[in-house]
Amino acid sequence: MQKTINQIEIMRKITLLLAAVAFSIIGAYAQQAKYVFYFIGDGMGVNQVQGTELYRGELEGKIGITPILFTQFPYATVATTFSATNGVTDSAAAGTALATGNKTKNGAIGVLKDLETPVNSIAVWAKNAGYRVGVATSVSVDHATPAAFYAHAGSRSSYYNIGKDLYEAGFDFYAGSDFLDPTDKGKSESLYDMAEKNGYTIARGYKDYMKKCKKAEKMILFQPEAASQIDRSSIPYAIDRKKTDLSLQDITRSAINFLTKDQDKGFFLMVEGGKIDWACHANDAATTFHEVMDMDEAVKVAYEFYSQHPDETLIVITADHETGGFVLGTGPYKLNLQVLKNQKVSESGFTAIVNKLRQKTKNQVSWEAIRQALKENFGFWDQVQLNDKQEARLKAVYEKSFKGEGVQLEKSEYTQDEPIAGEAKRILDEIALIGWTSGDHSAGYVPVFAIGAGAELFQGRIDNTEIPEKIAKAAGFNHE
Amino acid sequence: MQKTINQIEIMRKITLLLAAVAFSIIGAYAQQAKYVFYFIGDGMGVNQVQGTELYRGELEGKIGITPILFTQFPYATVATTFSATNGVTDSAAAGTALATGNKTKNGAIGVLKDLETPVNSIAVWAKNAGYRVGVATSVSVDHATPAAFYAHAGSRSSYYNIGKDLYEAGFDFYAGSDFLDPTDKGKSESLYDMAEKNGYTIARGYKDYMKKCKKAEKMILFQPEAASQIDRSSIPYAIDRKKTDLSLQDITRSAINFLTKDQDKGFFLMVEGGKIDWACHANDAATTFHEVMDMDEAVKVAYEFYSQHPDETLIVITADHETGGFVLGTGPYKLNLQVLKNQKVSESGFTAIVNKLRQKTKNQVSWEAIRQALKENFGFWDQVQLNDKQEARLKAVYEKSFKGEGVQLEKSEYTQDEPIAGEAKRILDEIALIGWTSGDHSAGYVPVFAIGAGAELFQGRIDNTEIPEKIAKAAGFNHE
Repeated sequence: MQKTINQIEIMRKITLLLAAVAFSIIGAYAQQAKYVFYFIGDGMGVNQVQGTELYRGELEGKIGITPILFTQFPYATVATTFSATNGVTDSAAAGTALATGNKTKNGAIGVLKDLETPVNSIAVWAKNAGYRVGVATSVSVDHATPAAFYAHAGSRSSYYNIGKDLYEAGFDFYAGSDFLDPTDKGKSESLYDMAEKNGYTIARGYKDYMKKCKKAEKMILFQPEAASQIDRSSIPYAIDRKKTDLSLQDITRSAINFLTKDQDKGFFLMVEGGKIDWACHANDAATTFHEVMDMDEAVKVAYEFYSQHPDETLIVITADHETGGFVLGTGPYKLNLQVLKNQKVSESGFTAIVNKLRQKTKNQVSWEAIRQALKENFGFWDQVQLNDKQEARLKAVYEKSFKGEGVQLEKSEYTQDEPIAGEAKRILDEIALIGWTSGDHSAGYVPVFAIGAGAELFQGRIDNTEIPEKIAKAAGFNHE
Repeated sequence: MQKTINQIEIMRKITLLLAAVAFSIIGAYAQQAKYVFYFIGDGMGVNQVQGTELYRGELEGKIGITPILFTQFPYATVATTFSATNGVTDSAAAGTALATGNKTKNGAIGVLKDLETPVNSIAVWAKNAGYRVGVATSVSVDHATPAAFYAHAGSRSSYYNIGKDLYEAGFDFYAGSDFLDPTDKGKSESLYDMAEKNGYTIARGYKDYMKKCKKAEKMILFQPEAASQIDRSSIPYAIDRKKTDLSLQDITRSAINFLTKDQDKGFFLMVEGGKIDWACHANDAATTFHEVMDMDEAVKVAYEFYSQHPDETLIVITADHETGGFVLGTGPYKLNLQVLKNQKVSESGFTAIVNKLRQKTKNQVSWEAIRQALKENFGFWDQVQLNDKQEARLKAVYEKSFKGEGVQLEKSEYTQDEPIAGEAKRILDEIALIGWTSGDHSAGYVPVFAIGAGAELFQGRIDNTEIPEKIAKAAGFNHE
């Protein structure tokens, strides 16, 4: 029987109605995030992200971006970052804002600006709601950003006490390079020794994690002992990584593995890409882009999980502040980011290479040897042509730091580097047409990206303190 | 009769269902934008917006932002801006992307990167859909951004031909400071003379508009003749504005008035805040903030209209690119933006003051007179204390440009300024802890804000070419 136009119209309306009902049910259901991933790119301002994608585009020989994963999430916005006391925040105050929803004084961790009143983080709200909880980073586990999720300290540098707070908070999983000050400078009981009595197993590296994870009740994952002996303050930069090094991806995979042990429970996991900030403090563009891509690799692990639980998983990506006053373009209406592919190591990695040369030659390193190292690690005089002025700058730095009054290391917030490493990096960044304003933070917006259950809450320009509130709303966490 | 749990549950479900239906009807209805406002802040990167709000916050004696209107719109995201040929776009290619949805070569207006194939803008799509159309700016009406909405030119600097295209496009309303080259450098028929035969009335200033608007079929609104004789290339900066000057707010008000003459029709209105870019090319922070606030004043006029027609109005705010590599914070973890309140004129405005002093004294301006002018217009030696080095810098510039080999004006993209004006502005920006990377554009994200019918389409990080497509979708414009 031929249907009349009216019948068709009625059927169309019923279909629309059913779709609307289905949508509203899905909508209500999707609000509850059982699994929450909260990624924080330390120092990852909007230009750090945009630059990474333009760099990837240029590597493919095109003008434009080759997107990483997390910028393609369906919700994106920007957030303000000022602290309670400063137009330009540090990582402690920003971490406290992102963790607890409270602005505080620069330098303070999990306390209000009176430096005394403790405030609990969303990780605590999650724990109280019966979620399993993990806090992970690529720097030391007691550094400002992770600490803001479990500790309360007037000063971010009281690393030993922050370490004790880690046990006090009693979350299920922690990860980072190591403790920064495990013995209170030799004065107190070792934080390592406290692990067992607090129910924690310490694993060293991914393989060791896999060995110990089944029996462990609570877990602290650190990098292998050998890596900590070289540098306990962070895992190596992605650009410098060796096969045996722990990666942020390993950490994220381990965290998911550990937090899903009890399948009845949901989880909250914070993962910090902590060394984007370090690379930006050092004004090292190639290393910065590799760190952003490396955090994206960790996000991919979370996204795999999301794909299996799309209605119950929320992934939020943001940053605590911008570092370096990083600018894409120094005047000519173009970029030349692809030249950065010739940089094979970080500024610090090149410093280590130069140090080896110093040791090998009893500090009698020839210009020829430095030239060869620069060729191998920055592509100079090979894929990257230098003009006379640039070559003269390198030579002058060599003369001064190898022949002259002795080397004066270049200091940035977290590193001390050979002047020749600094000059090589500066020259390459100039050729790439990248500008840096300072070795410290700026007040630029940070980006926010979200996908999954409750991601629709991330619309409109927001303040960093709103982010934990929105996640709590998505997951149904109550808090005071 | 006591209702059973089951009955209550059924009623609850019916209520939910009705709500869902109502929501879906409202949703479908709200999609259709009858009135479209498209604001483009030229050169307005994310830091220009964030800086303006932090400046306003500091003026109120607080750390943090005092928001302008448009950042509070419910939808916000960021957009990429690279052109077809350059990682860093110019205003012509960016304007073409924002107007037509096509990337093109830097310098090209409304044509593909072959510089020949014309592409129509959303203003044409709107006209074809029966909407009334307006294109307005605070710079000359034939400048890159407005031109991209009505003209087709391989080169943005062919101002006379672009002016002819304005008549060819035949939109209802145009506004700007003036034509830049009305006679093809004296070689061709005057664009003014062409107005009448193309059905246009030219009004000079807001009062003149009010006089002529009723009888006019189509309208071109320019600034008063006297202002054009001083500078035809743009209306004065907000910070320099006199009562008789045309403002972007006047322009927006006139546009709405003119486009709503036929109440049966919808309208599409593009308004460019064109001089944010000029202030940023000149690295003049105080002037930049005043320009952003001034565009916000124009947005307020649109918002008033939105408030009366909330279901049918869409307002989108974005920018074509970032200018200046503007950074909020130069190292210390703080800002000192409030010091900029002492700057009473733009760099160009101070140049005009210095010029008058030169004329008055037959070029024998004393240091005392300059010092007094700096005191009055930058607050130096009064609200703003200078250190010895800063004072010496000013004195050195004075000696060179008033006593030495004669003045060499400082050139930026759109202005040529007295060196003493440039140095004063640089010193004040340094005290404010603001950094600038160059006098040209960068590849940073631009912000996108939206409210009203179809605003929900602006979610997730987008490319600038997607913006006209999304607006077209919201308004139901068809196009090839």
